[in-house]
Amino acid sequence: MPTMNRQLRLQSRPKGMLAPGDLQLVESPLPELQEGQALAKVKYLSIDPTMRIWMAMDSYLPAVAIGDVMRAGGFAEIVESRHPDYSKGDRVTGITGLQDYLIIDASSSRFLQKVPKIPFVSDTLFLGVLGMNGLTAYFGMEIAAPKKGETLVVSAAAGATGSIAGQIGKIHDCRVVGIAGADEKCNWLTNELGFDAAVNYKHPDWKAKLAAATPNGVDINFENVGGEIMHAVFDRMNLHGRVILCGLISGYNKEDPALASLAQVLVKRLRVEGFIILDYAPRFMEAAKQLGQWKMFGKLKDRETIVEGLEKAPDAINMLFTGGNTGKLLVKV
Amino acid sequence: MPTMNRQLRLQSRPKGMLAPGDLQLVESPLPELQEGQALAKVKYLSIDPTMRIWMAMDSYLPAVAIGDVMRAGGFAEIVESRHPDYSKGDRVTGITGLQDYLIIDASSSRFLQKVPKIPFVSDTLFLGVLGMNGLTAYFGMEIAAPKKGETLVVSAAAGATGSIAGQIGKIHDCRVVGIAGADEKCNWLTNELGFDAAVNYKHPDWKAKLAAATPNGVDINFENVGGEIMHAVFDRMNLHGRVILCGLISGYNKEDPALASLAQVLVKRLRVEGFIILDYAPRFMEAAKQLGQWKMFGKLKDRETIVEGLEKAPDAINMLFTGGNTGKLLVKV
Repeated sequence: MPTMNRQLRLQSRPKGMLAPGDLQLVESPLPELQEGQALAKVKYLSIDPTMRIWMAMDSYLPAVAIGDVMRAGGFAEIVESRHPDYSKGDRVTGITGLQDYLIIDASSSRFLQKVPKIPFVSDTLFLGVLGMNGLTAYFGMEIAAPKKGETLVVSAAAGATGSIAGQIGKIHDCRVVGIAGADEKCNWLTNELGFDAAVNYKHPDWKAKLAAATPNGVDINFENVGGEIMHAVFDRMNLHGRVILCGLISGYNKEDPALASLAQVLVKRLRVEGFIILDYAPRFMEAAKQLGQWKMFGKLKDRETIVEGLEKAPDAINMLFTGGNTGKLLVKV
Repeated sequence: MPTMNRQLRLQSRPKGMLAPGDLQLVESPLPELQEGQALAKVKYLSIDPTMRIWMAMDSYLPAVAIGDVMRAGGFAEIVESRHPDYSKGDRVTGITGLQDYLIIDASSSRFLQKVPKIPFVSDTLFLGVLGMNGLTAYFGMEIAAPKKGETLVVSAAAGATGSIAGQIGKIHDCRVVGIAGADEKCNWLTNELGFDAAVNYKHPDWKAKLAAATPNGVDINFENVGGEIMHAVFDRMNLHGRVILCGLISGYNKEDPALASLAQVLVKRLRVEGFIILDYAPRFMEAAKQLGQWKMFGKLKDRETIVEGLEKAPDAINMLFTGGNTGKLLVKV
């Protein structure tokens, strides 16, 4: 039986990229197994962008505490058990942490699930296609509700989640365009995964290539990156398009209030909807009746700021930006 | 009958605030009315932030062409008619343009509607509560789907649209908090319109006041401003909150790629949804089955980048940010 365990513990919250020492490798003796515990050997660890968030701050999960083993998904096999639910040889996936061995007890077992041995299915598949990345692509694309013939653009398309999201788009008969950072990755997307096109954002004319690859605009953006790449995709979006905000990797190492706001959209699962009143023209009468009724019964009050003279209209427009008006701003002609 | 017409024509697209001459006042003779035309005297003009967009670029409507009369909503009264649908004394609202007189013909009449004389209803109400601002507040709040007891924050709350949106929130029994740029405006919101609280964003400690005014967080943000004000509200948003992106007035005079992206969300009526895979835990098995099937039938392909050794995990995390991996990134322990 193993007696020592190596763990990567969070020693300091990284600024930008991880620096040496942010995660510290610590070796310590494994305590003897207690009744109700099992010992699992971690075989594979899943490395995901969201780990950078866990190191930095409370989000959809609490930040990892300084001194704790760094949180990570993994695949592990039971090597010894005094736990009624686990036997030697059982295999589990879930949160194992960055360590050689995991002690399973009542608290850590909540974040683990046993996985069967399936012929032709490699252990690592439980961390990718059948793990969090596959599930993320699956449910993200469910929110996107792709329709046949629509154009889907996936950023970080050669990543673990993006590559699956794009292929699910193909299963739904979308035109799928990937954005990645190397020609070799782009070739993989188009030649092996069946993407209709792939654009390398490190090429200087990549925005023109993105435009050429999306001749009918973009209906769905499966967004993993944020920043300049997202802005370029937004420029190609069609009316009433859907943006599935799955990740913002370009911003995890930066401080930028606009990105921080988008991070709130992601982490808090917000829904942001733009709307233009003209779309509701067929229902204007219905709304005006209700508004008029509310006004009549004193439930709606209003105030007007009236500027006299057509020639003052330009000044009136500027008043909007300096906060010069309260309530409705009008020009009396 | 009038013989001359004054018009404000767009001479140059403004940079920042409107400069003298961007809109030029031009006086010219009114042409004689043709059969099928009517002449209307513009009595009131609606001054709205969206005019700044119309001056700058194609958006949900084409940009106003250089040399054309500036587009604007207005209220007008027919003074002469050779049009079968209009009689002298009829009153219309819609797009009248920044001018003294409007010639109504087949093309301009599409953007006008006749309004009745209603007792106790002033003409200007058709440009505010019963006009585009009221309708915008009404349908924006419909998208927000407010529930009793939820907290609604409205920015530019003392503006024509925001002041109505907030009151509709009160009609739906929400806690309503307004953000405005003057104490007098804040007093109007709380004392006269029934807002539960109002915060003046020009006070240095306004973010702390916003936090105090939203003790249960924010469920709905009716956003008219963007930028720093929006970021502060996003910091207060609750899980699964809704952001109704109605305007971004803080950015109409600026060039900023992050704001330009948000402007796309607004103008193209996009829906941006953040999501976190953990919310879907109860359906993981269902999804894993489907993913496994797709994988088995060759519809999903994957690739792995495997780094050897627990001690290499920090480098592996950094690889994500430098694009070092293709497909799933794993550490073999």
